[in-house]
Amino acid sequence: MLDSRFSERDHFFMSRAIELAKQGRFTTTPNPNVGCVLVKDNQIIGEGFHIQAGGPHAEVHALKMAGDNAKGATAYVTLEPCSHYGRTPPCAEGLINAGVSRVIAAMVDPNPEVAGRGLKMLEDAGIETDFGLLTNEAEALNLGFLKRMRTNLPYVRCKLAASLDGKTALHNGESKWITSSESRRVVQALRAESCAVLSGADTVIIDNAKLNVRFDELDELDAKHSTRQPVRVIIDSQNRLTPELALFQQESKIIIARTKLDNSHTWPHFVEQVIVKATNDKVDLPALMAMLAERSINLVLLEAGATLAGKMFEANLVDELVLFMAPKLMGHTSKSLINLPAFDAMSQVPELEIKTLKHVGQDICLHALVKRN
Amino acid sequence: MLDSRFSERDHFFMSRAIELAKQGRFTTTPNPNVGCVLVKDNQIIGEGFHIQAGGPHAEVHALKMAGDNAKGATAYVTLEPCSHYGRTPPCAEGLINAGVSRVIAAMVDPNPEVAGRGLKMLEDAGIETDFGLLTNEAEALNLGFLKRMRTNLPYVRCKLAASLDGKTALHNGESKWITSSESRRVVQALRAESCAVLSGADTVIIDNAKLNVRFDELDELDAKHSTRQPVRVIIDSQNRLTPELALFQQESKIIIARTKLDNSHTWPHFVEQVIVKATNDKVDLPALMAMLAERSINLVLLEAGATLAGKMFEANLVDELVLFMAPKLMGHTSKSLINLPAFDAMSQVPELEIKTLKHVGQDICLHALVKRN
Repeated sequence: MLDSRFSERDHFFMSRAIELAKQGRFTTTPNPNVGCVLVKDNQIIGEGFHIQAGGPHAEVHALKMAGDNAKGATAYVTLEPCSHYGRTPPCAEGLINAGVSRVIAAMVDPNPEVAGRGLKMLEDAGIETDFGLLTNEAEALNLGFLKRMRTNLPYVRCKLAASLDGKTALHNGESKWITSSESRRVVQALRAESCAVLSGADTVIIDNAKLNVRFDELDELDAKHSTRQPVRVIIDSQNRLTPELALFQQESKIIIARTKLDNSHTWPHFVEQVIVKATNDKVDLPALMAMLAERSINLVLLEAGATLAGKMFEANLVDELVLFMAPKLMGHTSKSLINLPAFDAMSQVPELEIKTLKHVGQDICLHALVKRN
Repeated sequence: MLDSRFSERDHFFMSRAIELAKQGRFTTTPNPNVGCVLVKDNQIIGEGFHIQAGGPHAEVHALKMAGDNAKGATAYVTLEPCSHYGRTPPCAEGLINAGVSRVIAAMVDPNPEVAGRGLKMLEDAGIETDFGLLTNEAEALNLGFLKRMRTNLPYVRCKLAASLDGKTALHNGESKWITSSESRRVVQALRAESCAVLSGADTVIIDNAKLNVRFDELDELDAKHSTRQPVRVIIDSQNRLTPELALFQQESKIIIARTKLDNSHTWPHFVEQVIVKATNDKVDLPALMAMLAERSINLVLLEAGATLAGKMFEANLVDELVLFMAPKLMGHTSKSLINLPAFDAMSQVPELEIKTLKHVGQDICLHALVKRN
């Protein structure tokens, strides 16, 4: 739907900026994905996207491409240009110095260090500014970053896989290859997009899971340039993990969340034990999520069993469900998808809103947003 | 995909015949849905579809419309023209008498009374014949009729509704409005398409269900012309049904399938008690299905609880699953979708093939075919 405040051309150039921004989705963390397009006489004269934290912002790439031609141009950016000195100088300053005459941002940056100050800086320099073009699409670029900036909590995507009757394992525990290889490949992309993969000690021990990204299984070309592994965060309230597990054979950052330190093992250098306050002898989940946000974790992929997944839903910490379903029927004696309290009325049941629905190989995959009460 | 034996025009006219045939889908039972298009000089000169058993066949409608013009025309029929005297004279004879010069059938009629004899009769009269154009689409018109003709069993479509985690009721039995009003409307259309709705005494008693078609809830215009109620078939192995139930307040044919007669109640005139052989004190399901097929029931909609649905799958009597899922999570203490044996290996689990997947209101609905081993 076109926003009548903006022209069809404005929509076109902002769409291009959004497409550019997406190319950074496996690499920019903890920074947001941002794209920028510079336009003069209806021609794109510069464009770019943010690739990696510490590297140039999208605007810098676009300005460099445009050179002196940027004078008098219109800049389309998917997020308000920054106004503060971080690892790079403020982009608002760069746009001013280049002589850009108009800046349209898809949305204001909720980062407290920006929050309208970028647009203000531009206006004070006499540049025409506007925002609110393709905002939904721009929001979707940065689900994790935006949630963290607004709530000091990460965006949690809960990935689950089951048969059509919502079962995850037979009565004897057998669960190998419920879903297809195509579904498992999609999971690799979900991991690659995430800042952290969160699981529980049980799952890690039972499946002897590594929980790393197998980049060679990714379809997306963009991901081929990335070798960034998400931080693996394992909740181990009973100190049951041991260094022999496959998890620890993969060298990349692991956080073990515990209620008390375990010094009975020697852990590899990439493992950090983090002590989180206990609630009923278990790691307090809201406290853990807040701690992850403090460490600039934007997007968490929860890959857990029925108990931890249920506790995360109960604590209202899950934003999105990604559910893979295999065309099988496993029956009532098999294990259920998610453990929740014994509700007495349908009105107490967690409700979601289905956003997307698709075939993945022989399976189906749906994305649903958790409705907040 | 075009079949190179046939021209693009042939495909176009047969597609039209298939669209026509669909218009009979709420009314033709126990006859098949058939459409016919008569073409001369690349113009449609006559068309029709079978509306109701006992009434004219598709070819008769099309020939009547074409009149004398039918001489030298090509007939496109979705099913081989019949060769036998039933309630109407054979259509092959009608086509011969009208002077049609070419007949293309989408498929041969597996009805033992036809089975190639219709095409043979046409050929013997010097008419050019062919078949095998858009066969899959033609098969889809008559899932029930074709299955019955080929196997002497009805086509069984199992309709189930659950939350995303495959639950149908809370631990205390509450299950009202798990799915949306849109999904319930689609169920009405599924009922209207069926020759019989099959359920168990438990479901009828617990839900006090009528299991009839509420025609005012149907979206489809075609259905507005129909007031045909599917036969309601209720399995009541323990003779638990009583005439006060809502089921018996709706006047239309009911078959109660039992292992022994219940003469302790006076039943309305539209109720028939049918005695089926017992297996483990329960109505033998294959015997019941064979009995329904003998009574010309083509398509059965199974609307049952977890136990009966499971038994039907176990007995290999279900052809298709229609699963509605509401965007809710009900948790492990809730009731499971389907009761099946406690499998020890994933290789024993019933497998399906997902054919269609769509949003229905806030819910999703999928159709899946049961894979035969």
